[in-house]
Amino acid sequence: MTDSRKVGVLGGGQLGRMLIEAANRLNIQVNVLDAAASPAKQISAHDDHIEGSFKDAAAVKKLAQNCDVVTVEIEHVDTHMLEEVSGEVHVEPSWKTLRTIKDKFAQKEYLKEHGVDVAESVDLEGKGAEGLREVGNTFGYPFMLKSKTEAYDGRGNFVVKDEGDADAAMKALGNRPLYAERWADFRMELAVMVVKTKDGVLTFPTVETIHEDSICKLTYAPPRNVSKETAGRARELAKKAIGAFEGKGVFGVEMFLLKDDTLLVNEIAPRPHNSGHYTIEACPLSQYDAHLRAILDLPIPEAGLRLREPAIMLNILGGQKTDSHVQVANKALESPNASIHLYGKGDARPGRKMGHITVTAPTLGEAEREIQPLIDFVDDLKGKPLGPRNVAEEEPLVAVIMGSDSDLPVVKAGLQILEKLKVPFTTRITSAHRTPDWLREFSKSAGDTSIRVIIGAAGGAAHLPGMCASWTQLPVIGLPVKATHLDGQDSLWSMTQMPRGEPVATVGINNSTNAALLAVRIIGATDLDVRERLRVWMEGNEKEVLRKDRQLLEQGYESYLKSMGK
Amino acid sequence: MTDSRKVGVLGGGQLGRMLIEAANRLNIQVNVLDAAASPAKQISAHDDHIEGSFKDAAAVKKLAQNCDVVTVEIEHVDTHMLEEVSGEVHVEPSWKTLRTIKDKFAQKEYLKEHGVDVAESVDLEGKGAEGLREVGNTFGYPFMLKSKTEAYDGRGNFVVKDEGDADAAMKALGNRPLYAERWADFRMELAVMVVKTKDGVLTFPTVETIHEDSICKLTYAPPRNVSKETAGRARELAKKAIGAFEGKGVFGVEMFLLKDDTLLVNEIAPRPHNSGHYTIEACPLSQYDAHLRAILDLPIPEAGLRLREPAIMLNILGGQKTDSHVQVANKALESPNASIHLYGKGDARPGRKMGHITVTAPTLGEAEREIQPLIDFVDDLKGKPLGPRNVAEEEPLVAVIMGSDSDLPVVKAGLQILEKLKVPFTTRITSAHRTPDWLREFSKSAGDTSIRVIIGAAGGAAHLPGMCASWTQLPVIGLPVKATHLDGQDSLWSMTQMPRGEPVATVGINNSTNAALLAVRIIGATDLDVRERLRVWMEGNEKEVLRKDRQLLEQGYESYLKSMGK
Repeated sequence: MTDSRKVGVLGGGQLGRMLIEAANRLNIQVNVLDAAASPAKQISAHDDHIEGSFKDAAAVKKLAQNCDVVTVEIEHVDTHMLEEVSGEVHVEPSWKTLRTIKDKFAQKEYLKEHGVDVAESVDLEGKGAEGLREVGNTFGYPFMLKSKTEAYDGRGNFVVKDEGDADAAMKALGNRPLYAERWADFRMELAVMVVKTKDGVLTFPTVETIHEDSICKLTYAPPRNVSKETAGRARELAKKAIGAFEGKGVFGVEMFLLKDDTLLVNEIAPRPHNSGHYTIEACPLSQYDAHLRAILDLPIPEAGLRLREPAIMLNILGGQKTDSHVQVANKALESPNASIHLYGKGDARPGRKMGHITVTAPTLGEAEREIQPLIDFVDDLKGKPLGPRNVAEEEPLVAVIMGSDSDLPVVKAGLQILEKLKVPFTTRITSAHRTPDWLREFSKSAGDTSIRVIIGAAGGAAHLPGMCASWTQLPVIGLPVKATHLDGQDSLWSMTQMPRGEPVATVGINNSTNAALLAVRIIGATDLDVRERLRVWMEGNEKEVLRKDRQLLEQGYESYLKSMGK
Repeated sequence: MTDSRKVGVLGGGQLGRMLIEAANRLNIQVNVLDAAASPAKQISAHDDHIEGSFKDAAAVKKLAQNCDVVTVEIEHVDTHMLEEVSGEVHVEPSWKTLRTIKDKFAQKEYLKEHGVDVAESVDLEGKGAEGLREVGNTFGYPFMLKSKTEAYDGRGNFVVKDEGDADAAMKALGNRPLYAERWADFRMELAVMVVKTKDGVLTFPTVETIHEDSICKLTYAPPRNVSKETAGRARELAKKAIGAFEGKGVFGVEMFLLKDDTLLVNEIAPRPHNSGHYTIEACPLSQYDAHLRAILDLPIPEAGLRLREPAIMLNILGGQKTDSHVQVANKALESPNASIHLYGKGDARPGRKMGHITVTAPTLGEAEREIQPLIDFVDDLKGKPLGPRNVAEEEPLVAVIMGSDSDLPVVKAGLQILEKLKVPFTTRITSAHRTPDWLREFSKSAGDTSIRVIIGAAGGAAHLPGMCASWTQLPVIGLPVKATHLDGQDSLWSMTQMPRGEPVATVGINNSTNAALLAVRIIGATDLDVRERLRVWMEGNEKEVLRKDRQLLEQGYESYLKSMGK
């Protein structure tokens, strides 16, 4: 074993189970406090587990007596007992942090005090239906009514749509400590897993999360249609939020991305989190590796938190039938890039998290196309109308931009080559002189999309590819288009003779075929499937010429010329 | 659970343990026959394991009674009892296959009968030292003396160097059933994991294996300096070999690659194998996932056997000290892309497999550079002189080829850019007219190496990049070099005006800076680190111009001209 220290975990659900997967590989013993045969205990055969509830003070104390570090897989624990034992055993993260975070209102107030942007919220404890109406007057409708404690997966939340909802809301949640939150009109939800170590705060990549019925359904790593700048801000915000708390371990930070690109922290989890499951396959170090290492002060090289490949995680929830989740898992066996995780839970109540699936692929588009049938299957089992499908279109790898639609006839042959060799592309009109701002915007953001090569077609002064190359780091191919004067030499020279610093890969005048083939070669430099399709295509050309040569040899040149009609 | 069938495994070592990791994730119960607390049992908490030896017929029978499918993690088992129980329970792979393979001589004879190329071997059972001398006369020296059974990790092998070795050899192995094998003068060893399902035979990628003291030390996926064609032949040979046997599951096929590129099967393992550990991180489906699915007739989509990223596996062996292996694992914690697997074994005898480490990275070169300190650490612990180090040089991503050394002064500025932006390159002289065959050979094989872009510099008729582009599918950048006449326009047009089909990405005359920057952009299209370095470099240029602009504004043009000395 790398370490003879023993780790105690309050809670033996799926998070504890995946933590133990990581610990098993390092031969580190983990003692679990939870019911017998809970998911985590199933994969850890030793006699030091404790049977009981993680809310039971005596059981927590018993666990702590035989461990060096105690941690949690759930925050709804007895923090007073953790406070008591923290003199004798390391508790990570700190009981103070757990106590603050387990009360969602206290959590928000704490973040606000530390300068972290959160959705506006108001204490409603003991204020009854009247308090709700007051909040409605201040926040407007709808607003969120939430239980401060014991709330997860949507349980303990109520959307108050109008004044008439107040009584129903109180009926649903009136016996719990409540607060209200202003409605966040968000464009999407993002999440970042943060690692707090003895030395500092590290982050995993930003992901997009999709909730359905208030339960996490999907995560996308990286997020779709989010600029690198925004993803970077999300990591910074998450870092700042977790930096404000005491203790070590991983934390999940859920955020709203508003329509004006503002980021607000929604909720924090002081433990591994559903939005970080994707790290098991997609990153060299998973959130579970990181949590274990952080609480034991073992090294965590930051570069190990990178994305190996884009990934999408789909939760497997209990469904209408007792075996709905099994059907989903079985369907996923047919998906080549799907890693399946079933948690070994007993009854499959509707909405209960029974497992998850992670698909990784060289591009997020490929992952989306692979996982879509599984999403459809899940929706179908749930009786959800498939409706307007969210099927990912193939993300373009090549952008073909031209100064004017009059260039399109020249460009056509190249587009046909891209189609033939199955390289997805997009075509745009962006004139360097008539729409300089649009060209600038396009060029500056292209690198943040799926695009890997740009072809710029232009005639005359032909500034289009050169200006584009000045605003992007992507390779730009210049296609000189023959205009009225100067036979296209003007454009050819305007492209090749770019100053040192911003090259344009120039091809022959009007030769859009070669511009496209060059783009295919560039994609093929790393995408071996594309390279193979190109090789086969080139082989076809070779055979065609060899066939003609044989024919010329057999027929003689006079007959051959005749067959050419010359 | 996806499946209520129970799997029984003969043997509970590391292979059984990693099989259970895969089974745990699918909630499939695996019953292990081995000693109590064996590695596999540690991560599988239930009461259906059997305590005993996998060589004990009664124990095998007991295991079989409570399982639906019985499989093995080791071939040295009681195949007679497996034959007996195979009427009541599925045994995978077939007991016949296990019986043939566990006798290495029978294995080789069987392969030979089925048309599979193997090293020549001769039966020596009962022939004593005299038999050895006869073999020496036929095979020459050295040759391999091997025990037919119970041989693994070099135990049971003896290298007979000359006639004088015969007695020592008989003393070492004389009490075992023996055969001799002609010495294979191999260039390297390759291995392929093969999956035999109810429907057919699939293969994982070909890997290179490095043995030390007859024990597997390292595997490289993909193999180094092996063409795709050879790697493909290795997969075909492995497929043919395993196709000859009955039963389902994964099989390891170890091969010799001789100096003339001939491939010979060395040995087969009817189970997951050390050379397939890398698949856990590097492939969407691991060899353990595949074995489990194959024996249970669950789907195995072939695309799931691809390489996500290049990977290197290093075994962690027991060393001189009882904690040598722990030291190696601890050192690996500092390595960002290292996944550490410790097997939970007891005593660390020297040479005993205690664990392994897999490093994955975007390129094999990066993985080599990351794992080298760990290899050094292992060698150092072992007291092995570090000697001439096998440190991977950085694999070139760009090849700069030129027709003559007279082009080098023009090319220089570009090479400096590649150095500055840390893009590894190689420079070669390959004249299209003076060394057409060398240019052809270089161009045809470039795609099988680490090279992703070629820059061809040439003056005059400048056929170099065009010919190169005709023999490769890689992107080729043309750098026209100004020669004595025609101001370089001759070369510029010779490059841009390539026929439709074989494009050359042409830059300005003598502008090697832009040729290099274009290569950097092409690499950066998928390598985001390179793209970021380029962005920073471009930002530097931008700042420089803005600085000059401020200076001109402040000084006025007259003073500015003066400071320029004009």
